[in-house]
Formats: sequence, structure tokens, C-alpha cells
Amino acid sequence: MMQSENSVEDSLHIRKLEVTDKEKGFIELLRQLTVCDSVSDERFKERFEEIAKYGDDHCICVIEDVRLGKIVATGSVFIEKKFVRNCGKAGHIEDVVVDSGARGMQLGKRIVEYLADHAHSMGCYKVILDCTEENRPFYEKCGFKKKEIQMVKYFV
Amino acid sequence: MMQSENSVEDSLHIRKLEVTDKEKGFIELLRQLTVCDSVSDERFKERFEEIAKYGDDHCICVIEDVRLGKIVATGSVFIEKKFVRNCGKAGHIEDVVVDSGARGMQLGKRIVEYLADHAHSMGCYKVILDCTEENRPFYEKCGFKKKEIQMVKYFV
Repeated sequence: MMQSENSVEDSLHIRKLEVTDKEKGFIELLRQLTVCDSVSDERFKERFEEIAKYGDDHCICVIEDVRLGKIVATGSVFIEKKFVRNCGKAGHIEDVVVDSGARGMQLGKRIVEYLADHAHSMGCYKVILDCTEENRPFYEKCGFKKKEIQMVKYFV
Repeated sequence: MMQSENSVEDSLHIRKLEVTDKEKGFIELLRQLTVCDSVSDERFKERFEEIAKYGDDHCICVIEDVRLGKIVATGSVFIEKKFVRNCGKAGHIEDVVVDSGARGMQLGKRIVEYLADHAHSMGCYKVILDCTEENRPFYEKCGFKKKEIQMVKYFV
């Protein structure tokens, strides 16, 4: 039993997004989060390369279940360069999602910790994110505290 | 009377941040928002150039009172490239502040509208920001609606 559980854990690899992850269900995973129509291979590659240009200033991490060759969790963080806080930097976490079939294994926590660690290693004085009131307890377990409110204006 | 008011309005020019704005009180203005020690000319120029590398993906706007050669309002927006929303883009507004001596002239609204227009023109499907509950009515006047809550983790 223990052995079997270990095997599952061992097969869950956390790493940065690769351009071949489209074939591993990356877009289908994002669709569990919000609107995301099918994206052509070309469009995917183009956006991947646009983001890659930012280097470590925009990091997308994924967890792959290597037994299945399937991306089961993801999240991103980008580093904002500011003048406030003595020319400080702030990390912004976005688009965190865990596959509905892979819940209860703390994958969300692993993603958020990976992204927060990345922001910290990049010299950020803080990392922020927006979430629903419902997800607040999860982020509190990840070491976050509620601060302000998020306002939005849609153009479409 | 009308003439005099027009003159004040006419002297308030909205534009993008320039590297010479440090001499026009840009850092002192940011200090009204949050912690911001004095920044050396070199450090300022370095950060200015780091941000300039992003081109239109990171826009800092200012309002200068040209009678006084003083920056009296500022705000920034950066464009996040996503995979969700069909490889959509989201604008993030940050660090909006109006000089305490220049309140009541709708400068905050001009700044926020400039930044939202910029995000729109860059093809963003939305623009978001975080603020206090106290500032919510101001942003509602600018066309924003409350959506989620902001969570933060500080490293310092």
C-alpha cells in the first residue's frame, strides 16, 4: 500500500512549462479554470515564445504525471519591476489550477510554493494573487494573508 | 475666474514617464503611496531602462504640472500574456497616486483612464487592480467592479 502511494508521488514531477506540454493536456487543464478555446499549435508556440522572452521574469510551472504523460497542475508568476520599495520587485501569481482528477494530493500547495519560492529567489519583497473568498483558506495554508480587494474592468 | 481655472487645467499634461522625471519629484510623489527611500540617479536610470525594455507591455504614466515642472500624479500598467482566454492578455494597474496638493481635479481618474485605455489598445480582455475598500467608490467611478480578494505574502 505504502509502496503504491510512493509510486504515485514519485511520478508527479514539478518543472517549468515546455513547448511540448500542449500535447500533454495543458490547454485542457486551463479550461477547468476559465474560458479557453482550443488553441492551434502555431498560436501556442508563438505565445510560448513571447513569454519565454521574459526569461525568469515570467515563470509558468507545471506538474506532470509522468506515468500518464499528462499535465495535472499549473500556475504562473511574473515579476513586476517597480520604483516603490526602493526600486523593489513584486511577484504576481496567476492561473493556478489542479486537474479535477488529481485533487487531495497537495498539488496546488506545491505549485503555489514553487511560484512563491521563485518570486523570492528573484528578489521580490512580496508575492500577491487574487482569489475567491472560497479559496482563501487554501492560500492561508500556503502562508498568504488577505490584504485588499480586487477590482476589474472587462473590455469584452 | 473661468480663465484662471482653464489655465490650471491647461498646465496639467498627461504623458509617459521620462528619465528626467526624477528631478521633477517622481520619487517624492511615490513616497505618498508607500515606502520609498531616496533612490540614486544611477539606480533610477537602471530601473527606468529595465522597464523600458518591455516597451508598451509596461507603461508608466505621469501628469506633470508644467507651470511648476512637477509630477503631480502617476500610475502604471503592465500587460500579462496568458494562455487562458484563447491566449489572451490582462492589464495590471499598479501604484496609482495623486499628490496631496493636487486632489479634487480628477487627476486620479485621468491616470486610471489613461492606463485602462492603454491596456485596451494592447488587446487586453480585462484590466485589474487591487485597492482598499475605502478606494472602491473611486474605482467604481472609473468603471471597475469588485471581483475577488487580494492575498499577499511578504518576504521582508
